[in-house]
Formats: sequence, C-alpha cells, structure tokens
Amino acid sequence: MRLLAVVSYNGTNYAGWQKQPDKISVQETIEGALSKFFNTEITIYGSGRTDAGVHALGQTFHFDVDRKEIDISRLIYSLNSMLPEDIYIEDMEEVDEDFHARYSVKEKAYGYTIILREKDVLLYQIAYACPYKLDIDLTEKALNLFKGKHNFKNFTSKEEDQDNFVREIYEINVEYNNETINIIFRGNGFMRYMIRFMVGTAIEVGRRRMTLEEVDDLLNEDSPRTVVSAKAPASGLVLLDVKY
Amino acid sequence: MRLLAVVSYNGTNYAGWQKQPDKISVQETIEGALSKFFNTEITIYGSGRTDAGVHALGQTFHFDVDRKEIDISRLIYSLNSMLPEDIYIEDMEEVDEDFHARYSVKEKAYGYTIILREKDVLLYQIAYACPYKLDIDLTEKALNLFKGKHNFKNFTSKEEDQDNFVREIYEINVEYNNETINIIFRGNGFMRYMIRFMVGTAIEVGRRRMTLEEVDDLLNEDSPRTVVSAKAPASGLVLLDVKY
Repeated sequence: MRLLAVVSYNGTNYAGWQKQPDKISVQETIEGALSKFFNTEITIYGSGRTDAGVHALGQTFHFDVDRKEIDISRLIYSLNSMLPEDIYIEDMEEVDEDFHARYSVKEKAYGYTIILREKDVLLYQIAYACPYKLDIDLTEKALNLFKGKHNFKNFTSKEEDQDNFVREIYEINVEYNNETINIIFRGNGFMRYMIRFMVGTAIEVGRRRMTLEEVDDLLNEDSPRTVVSAKAPASGLVLLDVKY
Repeated sequence: MRLLAVVSYNGTNYAGWQKQPDKISVQETIEGALSKFFNTEITIYGSGRTDAGVHALGQTFHFDVDRKEIDISRLIYSLNSMLPEDIYIEDMEEVDEDFHARYSVKEKAYGYTIILREKDVLLYQIAYACPYKLDIDLTEKALNLFKGKHNFKNFTSKEEDQDNFVREIYEINVEYNNETINIIFRGNGFMRYMIRFMVGTAIEVGRRRMTLEEVDDLLNEDSPRTVVSAKAPASGLVLLDVKY
C-alpha cells in the first residue's frame, strides 16, 4: 500500500530535505524512523526539496509498504516518539498506487517572515531579521508584480535549466504589523530559490536600490537571462501547504 | 567608570547565564567580546542568573572599565559584531560607582509561553509545547493564587536555603488565544525555578491533577517544606525586564 504523510519540521539543523552524503537531511531522518518501524528499508518521496535552513509546516511525502492494512494512528505515534523534536508527523492517509507526492502536486503555498529589526535573538532561526529601512509600500508593490503567470527564469538558481520557466502565482498576500512582514505565496509551482529571490528583490526595491520598472523588465519573457542576486535568507521561508 | 548594559539572548545553546567550567555560558561569551574590545580582562555582574535554556529580552549587567569617557554607540556596535547571532546588546549607559546590577534591582518581569500542541517544530526552543488538555480557567485561577506577598519556600529549588523565602508578585497577567497562553510575572524578586514551579503547578491544576486548595496550602507560611515537583520546561521562560 502507498501512504501519503504530512510533516512539519524546523530546517535549522538540517542540510535540507534531500538526502546527501555526510550530511543530516530531513528525508534521511524520517526514512530512518520508518525503516526502524517496518524493520525494512523504506524510501520516501517528497513533494519537492526544501533547502538547508528552510522550514515546513505542511511538507508531504509518500512511501510504499508491503502491507494490506495498517494502524495509522499507531504508526504516527511511534514515528513521532522516534523523531527528534524538530520533526513532527502531522497526518497520514492511504492513497492510490498511481499517486505521487511530487508529480501529483496541484498547488503549493509558502510563507516568508521578515522582522524589521537588526537582530531578533528569539526568532533568528525562523524569520529574517532585516536591518534595513524599508519603504513597505514599495516592497509590497514589488511583490505584487510577481502575481500571475510569468517566465521566472531570472528568479531561480542559475543552475536551473528547465524547458519551461513559466509558473503561475495565484496569490501573494502581504501582512504588516508590529515590525513584522508576513508574506504568503500560493502558486502552481516554485523553482529553486524562486521565493527567496522574489523576497530579496522586493527588499531591494523597498530599500530603493532597484525600481519597480527594473523588476518588470526582469519578468519580461524576451529579456536575456540575468538571474537576480538578492536572495533572502533561508531562515524566513516555510513550506506551508501542498495541495493535490 | 561603571556601565550598565541591557542584553537579549536565546538561551538554547548556553548552559545558562552563569560562568561554568567546560560549558559555554552567556556571561562568558559577553565577557569574551568585552575583553577583546578593551584588550584587558573584563568581568560582568548580571542582575541574576538564568538557567540553561532560559531566554532574555532585557537581562542587565554592569562592568567597570578604566576609562573616563567612552563612545557607547561604537562599543555596542563593535560588541554586536563580535557576538554570535543569539546574543544582542540592546542598550548601555553610564551609572554611578555604587550601582550594582544585582543588588540595586527593584523589580523584575518574566514571560512564560505555553503552546497547547503536542509539538511545535518552529517554536520548540522558545515556548513549551504542552501536550495535555488543560482547563484554561482553572490554570489561570491557580496562577492568580501566587499574586501578592507569599512565602515561596515550596516553589523554589530544594537547594535554595535562604533566610527569607518571602517574595511579592505585583502582577500576573494571563493572555490566551490561538492555542497559546502568554503569562507575564512582575515582582520584587524570583528565586531559582520559582516561575517554572508556579507554571508547572498551574498546569497540574489545569489538568485536574491538583486542586486550588492544595496550591493554597503549599503557599501557607506554616506548612512544612515540601517543594513541588511539577517544573515547567526552561524553553518557555524569558526574562523580560529588570527595573532599578
């Protein structure tokens, strides 16, 4: 049977979701607990990678087990008692054999938190403490330029070499209070570094080191590929939700 | 001259405020930065200790330097560039030579945060994720019993052997929303573990494992010394403010 799980994690102590030699990853940690429970090696397939230091409240993954039935509550309970305190299985359900945690994704939502302080000792691992004076209105205007369907070739890692850089962002919601900016992005897919580049660029605009027109030009389908350089830190980013 | 500083820190990675052999303390870390800046060994005197894992947004300390004048902004800036990202000097000012960060304290305020979830992967270092079902009303009633002047001999470490266990708590403010309980304590002094014992006991009452009457009895001046056992975790505790 195939199972789909929802997991939350604090990415601070991990080299990212994806398994890597000589580094501790979220994937490997979860696989370790599952393999111990089932007493056989289990491989999990995430909805996508998250980079080192990026968090999740609703990452998903699937895996197969050679069982006909399973007590899911007991499985969740056992896994959570084995997992460290920065990883937590929120939910699990049986899915069809043709379901795939990555290829069946319809929509993802990410959150990004900026705190307008030089340093925040309590939240430094789960937010970006931005020491610059920002024009919030300009920052928000820059973020809104990303809404809709665009070619995001300039807002993803230089190493990304996809056939198609077009993605659609359905919603960008910006809330500002108490020196904190909370941004929510909802879209059909996000490439590597895409949100961190959008947030980093919006901060550049808020600092008046870049104009809205320049951002618009970089989103132009026909512009040459010039990946932006302002990448907001991983700590502020959280994968909130994956929809199928 | 004598200087008084206000410092915030995340206690997660420290064995507490107080210097200890073979362990990394907040005090030692700050002394290291100060000694480097002044190129001579500096000792600092905190308003009191905080235990391992306890945080501060307004801890204070004083120290002496063999100077007549000092550029305080430059000193703060230099220290913050030397200190790790979980310690931050918020402020500094010159004080009289008879001022003492510990003995001159008039009032302290602490915060304690409980999140009513089995686990919170984002906030686990700066809150207590309480997995039990609590009667919030009873929890708050229990907390309110501690208000005022009491003999707190049963709500401090067994190792505490003071002449006088009487302390006065001026204010206990409880706010509850979004599965989060924020408690603020303001008083003339708090002994070791005192807040964690009060919170732990209030949780016992909220779980109906202890009655309000039993708490009242433990606060009775004439009761034999029976230190309570329910100590809330360090992670939820923050030293907010020290008044002189």
